[in-house]
Amino acid sequence: MTHPRFLSFSTSAGRPGYGLVSGDGVVDLSARLGDRYPSLREVIEDGALLRLADEFGDVAADFPVDEVTFGIPVPAPEKIICVGVNFPDRNEEYKDGQAAPSNPSLFIRFPRSFTGHDRPLIRPPESHQLDYEGEITIVIGKGGRRIPEAEALSHIAALTLCNEGTLRDWVRHAKFNVTQGKNFDASGSIGPWLVPYTDESQLADIKLETRVNGEVRQSDRTSRMIFSFRKIINYVSTFTTLVPGDVIVCGTPTGAGARFDPPIWLKPGDVVEVEAEGIGLLRNTIADEVL
Amino acid sequence: MTHPRFLSFSTSAGRPGYGLVSGDGVVDLSARLGDRYPSLREVIEDGALLRLADEFGDVAADFPVDEVTFGIPVPAPEKIICVGVNFPDRNEEYKDGQAAPSNPSLFIRFPRSFTGHDRPLIRPPESHQLDYEGEITIVIGKGGRRIPEAEALSHIAALTLCNEGTLRDWVRHAKFNVTQGKNFDASGSIGPWLVPYTDESQLADIKLETRVNGEVRQSDRTSRMIFSFRKIINYVSTFTTLVPGDVIVCGTPTGAGARFDPPIWLKPGDVVEVEAEGIGLLRNTIADEVL
Repeated sequence: MTHPRFLSFSTSAGRPGYGLVSGDGVVDLSARLGDRYPSLREVIEDGALLRLADEFGDVAADFPVDEVTFGIPVPAPEKIICVGVNFPDRNEEYKDGQAAPSNPSLFIRFPRSFTGHDRPLIRPPESHQLDYEGEITIVIGKGGRRIPEAEALSHIAALTLCNEGTLRDWVRHAKFNVTQGKNFDASGSIGPWLVPYTDESQLADIKLETRVNGEVRQSDRTSRMIFSFRKIINYVSTFTTLVPGDVIVCGTPTGAGARFDPPIWLKPGDVVEVEAEGIGLLRNTIADEVL
Repeated sequence: MTHPRFLSFSTSAGRPGYGLVSGDGVVDLSARLGDRYPSLREVIEDGALLRLADEFGDVAADFPVDEVTFGIPVPAPEKIICVGVNFPDRNEEYKDGQAAPSNPSLFIRFPRSFTGHDRPLIRPPESHQLDYEGEITIVIGKGGRRIPEAEALSHIAALTLCNEGTLRDWVRHAKFNVTQGKNFDASGSIGPWLVPYTDESQLADIKLETRVNGEVRQSDRTSRMIFSFRKIINYVSTFTTLVPGDVIVCGTPTGAGARFDPPIWLKPGDVVEVEAEGIGLLRNTIADEVL
């Protein structure tokens, strides 16, 4: 059985919307429910993903998927929090002699630093060190503060993927923090869609792979994460109240372009694919920014 | 002449609103203009601060200031970006032997990490290392990308103050990035109000002072900032598109509690005041979190 898949899109006329993928088509839910739910964020707040999947799963598609432009699945989340250094060998890659960290390293990205599936990641004129990072991404359904690990997974509404595209030289542009290298407009992507979360098997031990022009660059399994999904939700909610629609990008396996000697940066025309079992395939090309 | 002052508030009945301070009272603009401008963010987007100050500056107050609860002036900005290490001696305080940085260090805070004027900063049970940082804060009026330094100040809509409250041990909780120590709910404050920006003299060389229980702990002048307001706007807009209502917190002088030997942390009952000439006085007490 295929999991339901919810996408956010804009039409060729520029109208933003959201819907359910049905075969090669889109059931336009925003046309039917837009007054009640302006975006998927409000669908998530209402805990309505599975109900809508049931209700509209057999409806005929309104238009082909390839007629819409994919947006990031939750267009304006309150927070996008990213976990750094969360797979084996990633800590060693830093070559700073430090032991594996006891708490996850976290940074924040703005929604505008991401684009949707099948759209180009933008290489800015300020840096040619654009790099990929394929990551499993969770979207919070039920908010909370100091969520216990035992209950953490029940706070997840949906799963998606992220190419946490990074301008490497701008990550270390200043004394500390990676903010600027992680926040160039449209330098990363989230998508292609949301798959509602119902069962731990969707997350516990799935394969995550990143390919560049068909060549496998990153490949690992979520069972090897240093900080589990439970731990991440527990830790993040210790300091900030999580709310429905919040996005947590859970860390990338070893093998980004920066780790090659010499490094291999993404260049215009490259195709990057991030794929995970049961979630989908997030594909982006690379393009130079048009100034 | 007193500059106009715009505040965001909630009434004792819990209604959110915004208005203009007039003597000891508030002219409730949200009651008059709420359909057109749901919050001060939309007023700023429309470039309407000065027009509203003219139009409503002589109207009789609707209620006393002390009847409302102050909120952060822009309730839901797209971005709150903070500049680290931006005053002389702050770089030396890090004792890492590094030369002064050539680019500003940046980090991001969520709106919920801040409370308004005259409300308590919350000390969480996880850390008793709550510290103050008084900072000048600018609010963007006209958006843009790659804004030249020569034009940067014309993109400022208003000025305010920030107590960029920090949980020191959680700033270095992980391998890198200060995210978690800077984002405990209601650990900092922004306010008390917005003063529309009209002239460089409002920023160029003003005194910024932080006091704890009346004792001066931080005192410096904006003319001594390592990275000027122009440079900050230029640098930040290199990677991200600034939009109206975006908030940039511009760095704190030396003298935070962490710099004392032994460190002096804020404790319940303390009163912290951040004051700057021509902008106002941001006052907060400290309270333990009620669990």
